[in-house]
Amino acid sequence: MQARPRFADLYEALGYTFVDEKLIIQALTHRSADKMHNERLEFLGDAVLGMVIAEKLYLQFSAVPEGNLTRMRATLVKGETLAEIGSALDLGNYIRLGSGEKKSGGHRRASILADAVEAVLGAIYYEAGLDVVKAVIHRLFEDRVNKLNPKAHPKDSKTQLQEWLQARKQPLPHYEVISITGKDHAQTFIVECRIANQSLSTRGSANSRRRAEQEAANAMLGSLNDV
Amino acid sequence: MQARPRFADLYEALGYTFVDEKLIIQALTHRSADKMHNERLEFLGDAVLGMVIAEKLYLQFSAVPEGNLTRMRATLVKGETLAEIGSALDLGNYIRLGSGEKKSGGHRRASILADAVEAVLGAIYYEAGLDVVKAVIHRLFEDRVNKLNPKAHPKDSKTQLQEWLQARKQPLPHYEVISITGKDHAQTFIVECRIANQSLSTRGSANSRRRAEQEAANAMLGSLNDV
Repeated sequence: MQARPRFADLYEALGYTFVDEKLIIQALTHRSADKMHNERLEFLGDAVLGMVIAEKLYLQFSAVPEGNLTRMRATLVKGETLAEIGSALDLGNYIRLGSGEKKSGGHRRASILADAVEAVLGAIYYEAGLDVVKAVIHRLFEDRVNKLNPKAHPKDSKTQLQEWLQARKQPLPHYEVISITGKDHAQTFIVECRIANQSLSTRGSANSRRRAEQEAANAMLGSLNDV
Repeated sequence: MQARPRFADLYEALGYTFVDEKLIIQALTHRSADKMHNERLEFLGDAVLGMVIAEKLYLQFSAVPEGNLTRMRATLVKGETLAEIGSALDLGNYIRLGSGEKKSGGHRRASILADAVEAVLGAIYYEAGLDVVKAVIHRLFEDRVNKLNPKAHPKDSKTQLQEWLQARKQPLPHYEVISITGKDHAQTFIVECRIANQSLSTRGSANSRRRAEQEAANAMLGSLNDV
């Protein structure tokens, strides 16, 4: 009995069989493993995925305003979602890593998986064109698209930050006006956002206190996501 | 003699003639003017443009690493570039604005033009598909693509911040290590970036001082661009 070809399970899971095996190998090669790595394909795949999802949402949710479409797309293409899809495709079994990266766990590993998903999609687009990659993406994202709630309002940064902290049982942030400068009709507010046990602070500046708080919360979300 | 149709000059400049005139009208309608405005088409067009430019760069600069492709793409699709293209297409003559927006000038006007360019591209994709919009985008961006310098290194955040400040004759930023936590092999550095006369500070956190400084500089660039 003949052994199953190397990528047979992956091709089945993707619903696409590569003609050029070198291409899928490159898409699954982290830069730590080889000079022919997947970063350029990831660049291409990220753009293709963003476009296919944008079109899908545009067509499927024809009465939903742009702000909600943007939020829905962000949910679908964020690293966390892509890492889940990479796991479901079992990409971890195929990705070639350098010896240093093999030991990395958790967050680092998720981001390698997410990048590989994008690179694989870029490679399919490169080899087979838009219609084929569209069919692959639609199938991979179908359940997630159907679960989206198009009516949910995009959450403002202060709300997002509060939920992020509550989910991790962290103390809530404090906002403090640091300075108000400028004439009455053109004031600039600088607000600091501080989280006690994170020893982190960020600032936001805007022409209203409310807006400066949102900017500071947004900067804090950025800092927390980088950690 | 018959009058030239309403959009004849624009169609000529675009190299594309809309079958459905309602679609180009919607693409040129700002939300201040009508309920049938261009924001959803802008969402679609932004994604289509990003993808077409990504593919163009991927194919044309086949030896250029991902970081440079990303930087090159950002130069091409940023609002400033799109506003220039909108001006060259004379879109200002066609855009429908509400009475409030008609008085707005400068920055606001540039961003309305840039959004309309994306919406028009989204509308072409919607009506005619990828190959047609690709041809339009390639022609609109041809000169700019050919002028790109693929060898320029993507600038790191500290360098970008320094250049941003120098261009505006502002004092240079100070970086200060706020805390170092964790065991030897897994330390976390928190670095604060501060600019004297901006009364602004941002923080970055990473597993090296150098990287934390870059994160703080990046957060500062974000704050400054918001102001």
